[in-house]
Amino acid sequence: MAEEVVLLDFWPSMFGVRVRIVLAEKGIEYEYREEDLRNKSSLLLQMNPVHKKIPVLIHNGKPVCESSIIVQYIDEVWHDKAPLLPSDPYQRAQASAWSKIENAFVWIFFVFDEILPINFINLDLNTDKKNKKLQLYNSSRGVWSTKGEEQEAAKKEFIEVLKVLEEQLKDKPFFGGETFGYVDVCLIGYYCWFYVYETFGNFSIEAECPEIIAWAKRCMQKESVSKSLPDGKKVFGFVQELKKKLGLD
Amino acid sequence: MAEEVVLLDFWPSMFGVRVRIVLAEKGIEYEYREEDLRNKSSLLLQMNPVHKKIPVLIHNGKPVCESSIIVQYIDEVWHDKAPLLPSDPYQRAQASAWSKIENAFVWIFFVFDEILPINFINLDLNTDKKNKKLQLYNSSRGVWSTKGEEQEAAKKEFIEVLKVLEEQLKDKPFFGGETFGYVDVCLIGYYCWFYVYETFGNFSIEAECPEIIAWAKRCMQKESVSKSLPDGKKVFGFVQELKKKLGLD
Repeated sequence: MAEEVVLLDFWPSMFGVRVRIVLAEKGIEYEYREEDLRNKSSLLLQMNPVHKKIPVLIHNGKPVCESSIIVQYIDEVWHDKAPLLPSDPYQRAQASAWSKIENAFVWIFFVFDEILPINFINLDLNTDKKNKKLQLYNSSRGVWSTKGEEQEAAKKEFIEVLKVLEEQLKDKPFFGGETFGYVDVCLIGYYCWFYVYETFGNFSIEAECPEIIAWAKRCMQKESVSKSLPDGKKVFGFVQELKKKLGLD
Repeated sequence: MAEEVVLLDFWPSMFGVRVRIVLAEKGIEYEYREEDLRNKSSLLLQMNPVHKKIPVLIHNGKPVCESSIIVQYIDEVWHDKAPLLPSDPYQRAQASAWSKIENAFVWIFFVFDEILPINFINLDLNTDKKNKKLQLYNSSRGVWSTKGEEQEAAKKEFIEVLKVLEEQLKDKPFFGGETFGYVDVCLIGYYCWFYVYETFGNFSIEAECPEIIAWAKRCMQKESVSKSLPDGKKVFGFVQELKKKLGLD
């Protein structure tokens, strides 16, 4: 049977990019359908009725949701080429756990308030809600501080997470070891947002975490990655456009 | 080699209970170590240095973190007895995705503010932070309302999630089909909190979602479940004690 593969996605999504990378790694042909998150297609609503989120992989008419689950699914179904998850259960559990560190990356959206409106779940957030979310972030950290202090604290936390990742990387070329694997797929999607973080946050990730940047550049040497990741400046342009639309600039 | 299995846990945790159920299902002997979440053991901090959360399974000296990952890990390592996840990749992906619906259950903590302090990550939340989190929950739903309206809306959402689950259950005895499986393990832990929800929320889950209660009772017929789940009234007592300690009653 010919495989019919459709991907519902949104180009700046670091979650969607994971699926694009894996499909490229495995050499799977597919139809790409760009979603307008402010006007979601009936196909998206039908295929992911509970969460209504991209990415959704539709394989022979059947939907698979949640980027990390989609990546594992593709790895299992097309297991002959470019395996991503180790076969040992312990190694696999560790890979799954490390990929969950992503939450720390997502939090940064709640802090650089210029970036916040690009929450991929609620693209229509307004400034009022944004301020409430900032307050929450604040409170969850147990810190009451000014916006400037906020951003400094957020940068510090972000860098700390990257340093934890650097330690995990040690002298290995990839989180997967000698080869590009599941954790690499889950983390590299954030790289196309680094330029946005750096520009709004006015800091250099490379100066703080050179090993992470070296790792990202190694990943980018893979065609499956470089062709799937949008350019950082294009993502920055998208954020600026959105800020304009939302009256935040 | 004799297997050495240690579980770091906290008895009212609906995440820890998942692991207890699976260990019982598989007939695995283990050492249970209760954690004081306000004074975490050095073993917990050493075994889960990034998230510092229970449950942690320590298998032959090596830690596995995150309840859903631990459940999958145990299912893979002890695969001969009582398999929980289907072997078909598509069915497995669906099970993983359904187990993520848990987020909707966790949100209820942010709404019944009497319950909120029992956030298992930050057991030391104070009322100030609690109110901020409520505001966030409010804002994420795009609704500005009074506390009474809040709670009504939260109940409604909670019931809606249960109804989605009931639809998924259809006429099957378990989410896993004819047998108790991964999704059942992930969801049944919430059952011991139903009495707390109902009492603080002043509503009957059974009146709204009889199929869910019938499913939970079927699960409770399994010794692995009934012996692992704490009694709902004991959990309620724990919540009341905590409220007292935090000066919230």
